[in-house]
Amino acid sequence: MTERILQFLRSRREDGPRLVLDLDVVRENYAAFAKALPDTRVFYAVKANPDPQVLKLLAELGSCFDTASVVEIEQALASGASADRISYGNTIKKERDIQRAYELGVRLFAVDCEAEVEKLARAAPGAKVFCRILCDSTGAEWPLSRKFGCAAELASRVLEHAHRLGLTAMGLSFHVGSQQRNPRMWDGALKEAAAIFRDLAERGINLQMVNLGGGFPTKYVKNIPAVKVYAQAILHSLRRHFGNHIPETIIEPGRGMVGNAGVIEAEVVLIARKSGNDKVKWVYLDIGKFNGLAETMDEMIRYPIRTTFDGGATEPCVIAGPTCDSVDVLYEREPYLLPVSLEIGSKVLIEGTGAYTTTYSSIGFNGFPPLKSYVI
Amino acid sequence: MTERILQFLRSRREDGPRLVLDLDVVRENYAAFAKALPDTRVFYAVKANPDPQVLKLLAELGSCFDTASVVEIEQALASGASADRISYGNTIKKERDIQRAYELGVRLFAVDCEAEVEKLARAAPGAKVFCRILCDSTGAEWPLSRKFGCAAELASRVLEHAHRLGLTAMGLSFHVGSQQRNPRMWDGALKEAAAIFRDLAERGINLQMVNLGGGFPTKYVKNIPAVKVYAQAILHSLRRHFGNHIPETIIEPGRGMVGNAGVIEAEVVLIARKSGNDKVKWVYLDIGKFNGLAETMDEMIRYPIRTTFDGGATEPCVIAGPTCDSVDVLYEREPYLLPVSLEIGSKVLIEGTGAYTTTYSSIGFNGFPPLKSYVI
Repeated sequence: MTERILQFLRSRREDGPRLVLDLDVVRENYAAFAKALPDTRVFYAVKANPDPQVLKLLAELGSCFDTASVVEIEQALASGASADRISYGNTIKKERDIQRAYELGVRLFAVDCEAEVEKLARAAPGAKVFCRILCDSTGAEWPLSRKFGCAAELASRVLEHAHRLGLTAMGLSFHVGSQQRNPRMWDGALKEAAAIFRDLAERGINLQMVNLGGGFPTKYVKNIPAVKVYAQAILHSLRRHFGNHIPETIIEPGRGMVGNAGVIEAEVVLIARKSGNDKVKWVYLDIGKFNGLAETMDEMIRYPIRTTFDGGATEPCVIAGPTCDSVDVLYEREPYLLPVSLEIGSKVLIEGTGAYTTTYSSIGFNGFPPLKSYVI
Repeated sequence: MTERILQFLRSRREDGPRLVLDLDVVRENYAAFAKALPDTRVFYAVKANPDPQVLKLLAELGSCFDTASVVEIEQALASGASADRISYGNTIKKERDIQRAYELGVRLFAVDCEAEVEKLARAAPGAKVFCRILCDSTGAEWPLSRKFGCAAELASRVLEHAHRLGLTAMGLSFHVGSQQRNPRMWDGALKEAAAIFRDLAERGINLQMVNLGGGFPTKYVKNIPAVKVYAQAILHSLRRHFGNHIPETIIEPGRGMVGNAGVIEAEVVLIARKSGNDKVKWVYLDIGKFNGLAETMDEMIRYPIRTTFDGGATEPCVIAGPTCDSVDVLYEREPYLLPVSLEIGSKVLIEGTGAYTTTYSSIGFNGFPPLKSYVI
């Protein structure tokens, strides 16, 4: 929450939920990453928030871009970044999308299996590839499944296959899980990565790069360690496992770059109890899972909510969205403490909503429009 | 799946997933509801699929419309339905949205608490209200939480309050859960409704209507009872609990009206194994949770998937979507049997996707566009 955001909200009143994102906070976050990891290139994860103004600022600051699709590549290029600052980081790509990316100048691609290597050899000859490996994401609030990456024993085969087909086997990537609260979680993956580096070096393939992924958290309800604490833990693990041969490194922060830069203003539409002896109150907002707060799925991300009644007595509330869909409930399993005096029509501020809100919005489920966004 | 849909798909090849919806099937579904429940008014749940051609056809056939927002009211009006055929069925409404609906001519509103009644008394004087009660949704594949409705003992108070404030206390509504596979689940709620009718009649308030909600299923992987089986069970329960004083009834089918009218064509983007001894294969499609198949959340809705390789040997597969989001996995807990010979680049047909697909799509998560839709 910044004074600039509060001023903007006061100066322009309007109906419906809206995100306001302060570019000054993004600038500070970029500087913190650059300072904590001076030898590491930053690839901003465009999917976290692809707003043109966010991308333009980051391009000016020198950031590179991690993209998930051709549309995101085009957005990154439109921000002013050259193609050599763009990584096509999705391990799942149609061959014609690889070809389009290659035509646009992109030369760095993620893979996690031999079939994807073969598409790249055909559609992006000579490109640089890194292989994503599975790793432990314990401690992450948005843990990753086995969807991306392969077991370490397959990674060597995948990269050898790339080398054989004329691609440049650049290195490895992994992801310790989004909103990772434990800075030591990079250690296990770096140990595995170093073993693969040695294994391939013995076979004449010299990897050069480790993509440390994202996972850097933003502050929601609980406190988090500072970026420099993560940097120290990562540098320690790099020295421990790679000794004097520390590879190039890149990071892909998304949430950690823009999460705390945004605040959503929403409105209390209804407050009700379901029966005479109900222990919890139901508080319905004009924002829910389908117009911005998709990451409350399974109550994974718990956003701080500020009201004008803060400071007084509180009581446990279920918080739900405005649609006629029963899954559009934000917090129920673990009710949320809100002020007793909260009223229908009150505005509330939902903090830490700069990442993974706007583009998750449905195009119009139940007739509710996508989340409005203002970048200041 | 209809011959018209197959012909359309053959005649127009294109990149990216697309829904094709056959209006002939919607026409048949409407006729089946009208025939099975001739004394019941049909209020189509616009949120299931608000495509203008679907709404226009249903308006011509005589359907009424259940809406969740002012935008949906405007869509129903644009289809040619007059305002007296529209219900504002969302129990969670901003007072200014109630006022807007009232200005547009809508006179029938859902409530489930006294605070909502007070908004209506101010913004829609004299309007007709029905109170939603909580009911058991066991047997539903998309069960409803306690988000909508109040306990039976509160419903009488809510309707009395409406009566006192000059509104017309019309009746009750309930919802047995979407994709309800047990036709007898309406019985318990109708028993409770009849008791509230008697209770209020003793206090001089004569309710007239029971809104039987939705819940009528569409065929996915498992077989379902026909509409007439539901109708017989409901009529039996109405006679059992209301005797010779059977109230007006309305139903709100959404999924049951359009679900089986639509088929999505998608493409296999990648097939991979995660390790040498992996028992399941990962099959990645160009459609997932964020561009049309949101209802695979918690693997609740299991769509039939047809491929050109059907009939041969199958093997268990995890099916996932194309985004860089680890929750974008459709079926993993219970893997899906797909042909061993399925190939990267194959087209697959996902049946029963006419409801709750297009408008759930995100506006562009990961740069992937919303689901394309063709109504034929």
